[in-house]
Amino acid sequence: MTRPGVPVPVAVGPASPAPTLLQKAVVEGGATLVELERARGLIWVGGPGEFPDDLPASIEWVQLPAAGVEDWFTAGIFARHPNVRFTSAAGAFAASVAEHSLMLLLAGVRYLPEHLHAGSWRQQDFFPHVGTLRGKTVTIVGAGGIGRALIPMLIPLGVHVIAVNRSGRPVTGPGIPDTVETIRADQLGKIWSRTDHVVIAAPATPATKHLIGAEELARLKPSSWVINVARGSLVDTDALVCALASGAIGGAGLDVTDPEPLPDGHPLWVLPNAIVTPHDSNPPQLRLAAFADHVVENVTRFVAGRKLLAPIDSERGY
Amino acid sequence: MTRPGVPVPVAVGPASPAPTLLQKAVVEGGATLVELERARGLIWVGGPGEFPDDLPASIEWVQLPAAGVEDWFTAGIFARHPNVRFTSAAGAFAASVAEHSLMLLLAGVRYLPEHLHAGSWRQQDFFPHVGTLRGKTVTIVGAGGIGRALIPMLIPLGVHVIAVNRSGRPVTGPGIPDTVETIRADQLGKIWSRTDHVVIAAPATPATKHLIGAEELARLKPSSWVINVARGSLVDTDALVCALASGAIGGAGLDVTDPEPLPDGHPLWVLPNAIVTPHDSNPPQLRLAAFADHVVENVTRFVAGRKLLAPIDSERGY
Repeated sequence: MTRPGVPVPVAVGPASPAPTLLQKAVVEGGATLVELERARGLIWVGGPGEFPDDLPASIEWVQLPAAGVEDWFTAGIFARHPNVRFTSAAGAFAASVAEHSLMLLLAGVRYLPEHLHAGSWRQQDFFPHVGTLRGKTVTIVGAGGIGRALIPMLIPLGVHVIAVNRSGRPVTGPGIPDTVETIRADQLGKIWSRTDHVVIAAPATPATKHLIGAEELARLKPSSWVINVARGSLVDTDALVCALASGAIGGAGLDVTDPEPLPDGHPLWVLPNAIVTPHDSNPPQLRLAAFADHVVENVTRFVAGRKLLAPIDSERGY
Repeated sequence: MTRPGVPVPVAVGPASPAPTLLQKAVVEGGATLVELERARGLIWVGGPGEFPDDLPASIEWVQLPAAGVEDWFTAGIFARHPNVRFTSAAGAFAASVAEHSLMLLLAGVRYLPEHLHAGSWRQQDFFPHVGTLRGKTVTIVGAGGIGRALIPMLIPLGVHVIAVNRSGRPVTGPGIPDTVETIRADQLGKIWSRTDHVVIAAPATPATKHLIGAEELARLKPSSWVINVARGSLVDTDALVCALASGAIGGAGLDVTDPEPLPDGHPLWVLPNAIVTPHDSNPPQLRLAAFADHVVENVTRFVAGRKLLAPIDSERGY
């Protein structure tokens, strides 16, 4: 806890000079930017390999730049600094991926790919193909950061959301209304008939490999779009290509593919109802900006002595 | 007002058979579908020319299918039925156009047109061009139905909204937070430097012709997208083509053009940073579905004796 008016010294490391955006973020959060030796907080933008073996005794808190911190755990960083609070960037990068998935879904439903190849007005040809998300049901597989960031973006569009997670416990969070249904992953087979579109935002594990295969694609609608912003392995690519080519589903918007990178000449590059973006839903400049926002928030909380976002349990390592 | 349990008879006219979607809407709203002669409410899906000269004395309320009802006023319909309450479909069709404008804006900001022409992974080439709406300022020119429907869609994306209307009175409505700025149309010149993107959703009048011309385009940013879902005349097309070709702005997403239809071979068809959709943001099948939703809501209110949406002031004619 900090007395009002007393400056709170925070350092940024290891880059020299540190990215301006992060220096600004420290100041915007209400702290004073100082060298590591005098700091109470440290915003770290490097990897675990560069992390100092010894920290000044003044350091109370370290903000790490990654959402997943397995490497830091493996490197023994948390064990080596038992009296320091560590926070990760968990949650900071989800919004950009969620926004990208919304873009892919809207572009698909509103028939944008064909529009961009039209070169001619032909309004009557396009009319029947322009859809809307209003009144439609979107199933989001995976209710982690990305899924939870996407839900509030879909609600004002009049979408009914079915969120799928492992526990089946209702998904909650800012901007997530009670009208969102949550179902357990092993019940997924029961909701395809009620699903208009699918957004895949679940981690890649042996259990989620080919989660969307020939059988699932056959149960979707000829107007359904499948959006994947998670990992390519969750979708059976060959089955998807078949479903796209035959019109069994409306289309696919993919920021991730299997294989990745998608090789030149692959059918997904030429199918008119496939949109491929090269895993760029969260490019480096947006990551830095999102991390800076996260730093502003956590510095603000540190200065005020409030609970920090994304605290790491040093023993569990996440 | 209706006693609970007593059926409320409502008719659909003049089509025979009436569109199934509207018959369903009447029932979903809690009324009983009947012939005109026995009805208390009438859902009208024709034009003013087909409207009956005489209505049964039982008719208390008529729902018209249009958002603008000038033709009905001119035809003297309201004067001829002074004891009947009329409602329009004002507001019913705005959501689809707002959704379309969001789609165009997101597709632009996230560089979708170039992605669709890529045919190859080239991630590093794309990274620097993928933007986000988060933290950006979007100026919406026109705060009528479309503008007010768009605002709640932009808020969860982390957008700061500047709404522009004639009065400058703060825009309010469901899902519109206090953080939305409202400025008077004659102050528009003052906010270009703070604007990242522009959505045009204002009516076409002599005052709004070429509202976006060479001068305004020059004050926007090289990353700015201009979205027009209102009328083509609000943008100076020649100036826009110049700005797009020179990179003075990021791009344009146009559902309306000047001239319209846009002729084959026009530069807007080939510029890589222009997206043209042929005035299909609200195609016939979505209009009917949106009208059906409006009918469900107003029938529900009629049955419950509650205030109806979009009542027409029979003397003023809107």
